[in-house]
Amino acid sequence: MRITVSRRAHFNAAHRLHNPTFSDEKNEAIFGKCNNANYHGHNYELEVFVSGEVNQETGYLIDLKVLKDIIKEHVEEKFDHKNLNLDVPEFANLLPSTENFAKLIHDILASKLDPAFSIQVKLWETPRNAVIYPAIDQIR
Amino acid sequence: MRITVSRRAHFNAAHRLHNPTFSDEKNEAIFGKCNNANYHGHNYELEVFVSGEVNQETGYLIDLKVLKDIIKEHVEEKFDHKNLNLDVPEFANLLPSTENFAKLIHDILASKLDPAFSIQVKLWETPRNAVIYPAIDQIR
Amino acid sequence: MRITVSRRAHFNAAHRLHNPTFSDEKNEAIFGKCNNANYHGHNYELEVFVSGEVNQETGYLIDLKVLKDIIKEHVEEKFDHKNLNLDVPEFANLLPSTENFAKLIHDILASKLDPAFSIQVKLWETPRNAVIYPAIDQIR
Amino acid sequence: MRITVSRRAHFNAAHRLHNPTFSDEKNEAIFGKCNNANYHGHNYELEVFVSGEVNQETGYLIDLKVLKDIIKEHVEEKFDHKNLNLDVPEFANLLPSTENFAKLIHDILASKLDPAFSIQVKLWETPRNAVIYPAIDQIR
Amino acid sequence: MRITVSRRAHFNAAHRLHNPTFSDEKNEAIFGKCNNANYHGHNYELEVFVSGEVNQETGYLIDLKVLKDIIKEHVEEKFDHKNLNLDVPEFANLLPSTENFAKLIHDILASKLDPAFSIQVKLWETPRNAVIYPAIDQIR
Amino acid sequence: MRITVSRRAHFNAAHRLHNPTFSDEKNEAIFGKCNNANYHGHNYELEVFVSGEVNQETGYLIDLKVLKDIIKEHVEEKFDHKNLNLDVPEFANLLPSTENFAKLIHDILASKLDPAFSIQVKLWETPRNAVIYPAIDQIR
Repeated sequence: MRITVSRRAHFNAAHRLHNPTFSDEKNEAIFGKCNNANYHGHNYELEVFVSGEVNQETGYLIDLKVLKDIIKEHVEEKFDHKNLNLDVPEFANLLPSTENFAKLIHDILASKLDPAFSIQVKLWETPRNAVIYPAIDQIR
Repeated sequence: MRITVSRRAHFNAAHRLHNPTFSDEKNEAIFGKCNNANYHGHNYELEVFVSGEVNQETGYLIDLKVLKDIIKEHVEEKFDHKNLNLDVPEFANLLPSTENFAKLIHDILASKLDPAFSIQVKLWETPRNAVIYPAIDQIR
Repeated sequence: MRITVSRRAHFNAAHRLHNPTFSDEKNEAIFGKCNNANYHGHNYELEVFVSGEVNQETGYLIDLKVLKDIIKEHVEEKFDHKNLNLDVPEFANLLPSTENFAKLIHDILASKLDPAFSIQVKLWETPRNAVIYPAIDQIR
Repeated sequence: MRITVSRRAHFNAAHRLHNPTFSDEKNEAIFGKCNNANYHGHNYELEVFVSGEVNQETGYLIDLKVLKDIIKEHVEEKFDHKNLNLDVPEFANLLPSTENFAKLIHDILASKLDPAFSIQVKLWETPRNAVIYPAIDQIR
Repeated sequence: MRITVSRRAHFNAAHRLHNPTFSDEKNEAIFGKCNNANYHGHNYELEVFVSGEVNQETGYLIDLKVLKDIIKEHVEEKFDHKNLNLDVPEFANLLPSTENFAKLIHDILASKLDPAFSIQVKLWETPRNAVIYPAIDQIR
Repeated sequence: MRITVSRRAHFNAAHRLHNPTFSDEKNEAIFGKCNNANYHGHNYELEVFVSGEVNQETGYLIDLKVLKDIIKEHVEEKFDHKNLNLDVPEFANLLPSTENFAKLIHDILASKLDPAFSIQVKLWETPRNAVIYPAIDQIR
């Protein structure tokens, strides 16, 4: 009995998009308002999908309290009220785009959860913009 | 032209998680607040996904009024305002976890709908916790 | 500068509506499915509105972290995963209708917050049904 | 690094469901209230999923501003405040069911976006009814 | 113990905004896309607020099942899947703007509910646009 | 016929809470994570309420397209993707708390709209935290 559970979480952060190998003009042309040198910010909404086999003794795939605490410790506390560019070492040399951010969160969670599970994350930067990693045509 | 239609429904129920083969201590350790002997409850939100070929004469995969009525008769009326442990025979010997509940709803709907359709359900126990059956990496 | 801040919270509980001074027939006629002897349950959504004067040194009406913690300690922990009829002394002789429940939450919060504040609560029993106390034409 | 980005959009339109090769009785029997000769209408919510490889120089799969503008020009401006039956040539001989509408929007967007991308759309006709094209068991 | 209960409902309809005493140019200038001669449509979301005294025997202001049925019979069935201009007599000589529509729904409900209650309605024409009647500074 | 219309808008920004007349310890004690020197950020959701008399010729209180454009020009374009502390002159000597921010937006809109209208704003800093100005017990 293979199943997927999902858990949502929320945090907020500041960031800017800026590639130091680009000229200022190219950064402005490509990243527009997201290139603001003084940073801007978002409330990020996260949905984590964990797939695997249900434990028949507990009826659980994973105790959602455990999943909630792992997300809280390794994602919410790491990123909440932070400046992604300045406060998060992983973004020292990596653009904090939603794409790269979703993959980073996926990789953090995959390293903390039982490797028998398959993990997918959906990260909303705004209520209308989101990123899913791995891609929906790769999750199998 | 293969397509998926989805329909959402809502109902509420009481339940508790308790495995009679476990000691009281183990039930408390594993299920925590969900083990409360007096029950607790939820508003369940359900999204049913039905995949198949569109009928070119009607433009429909399935008349959503028909799908709505099947969900109402076989899911909402069966579970709404019920105690899952005491009022639902299928849970007499099965833990009413969201995982098992999602699979039960899937199996009920699959037995009522044209077997040519492929069915998936997403069941939210709270706005932040949900289960999808079959797993998102198995729906193909 | 008088302002209102609002904070949302979430918890779930089981309950039933039953007036012991009514006959079984009258209870069934008035409360319908809500009279189920085995209880049913809900995810309750709560929005708490606090009105008063802004502190110009902090820019705050009240530190929302303080408000969040008061709601968590005195509302969420008191009611979450509980059976309102059996686990909550205030409902020993009071019908746990959403109306009475909203007033109880209002009165608990009013007793824990600075009396200079005016408090209003909105309590959703389902996404479509809610109660506001005090009434919207009385909050002044 | 294959990823999916999603973007939501909103528009509204009038339509009716009516197959001219059916008798009036059959149209009424199959389409019910949706057959009203004077039309009815909806707020349509659209979520567009685009899958492909992330550009490591920008951290983007696709500039969401570009995706937003393509959806605005080719979907929102084409359908918003329109009568699907009378104002949209593609529906002159095609039933404007949500199924056919979702496929039309998919095909429009696929023709405007880089063919290296894989496209999926989810179109809500009401908050409870939606269609996904291609089917969730075909997106691979 | 004065309290407010609220109940949400949903329906959809087509309409156009057109004042026959205006020239075509003036209609176009004032109503823009909403003047489309072929109609457009919306999913309307409605929240009905009823204020009054709680009945201590039932714990209810009003049985929400009764309120739900009154809204269903006198609002949803009257307007759902209708063309407001052509199918609703009250709009024969009245512009079906959201403002006039909210007042009409208020007046219908006020005529069906106990006159001891005070009624307010909020009507969303889109997720971002709504009308409240009576005005929020008049409900007292 | 006095009525209220509401319009929702969305933008995002970075900010920090820091009172330069406080010691670092006091700033940390009062503002906690919101005091991060590198800033953090939010998606702000705004609902603007405008109350007044309906124009019987148009059925409108105010053309919502006009209201939308005023909000876009004077609120969204002024604050979107900005650092409130560094990019917004009004916050040079004013704490950018949600309370002060809501009042600023109210005052901007009141200065751009017909003074016959009464204005109220609700500003969400996160999905669970919001501020309403003027206070709900003052709007009359």
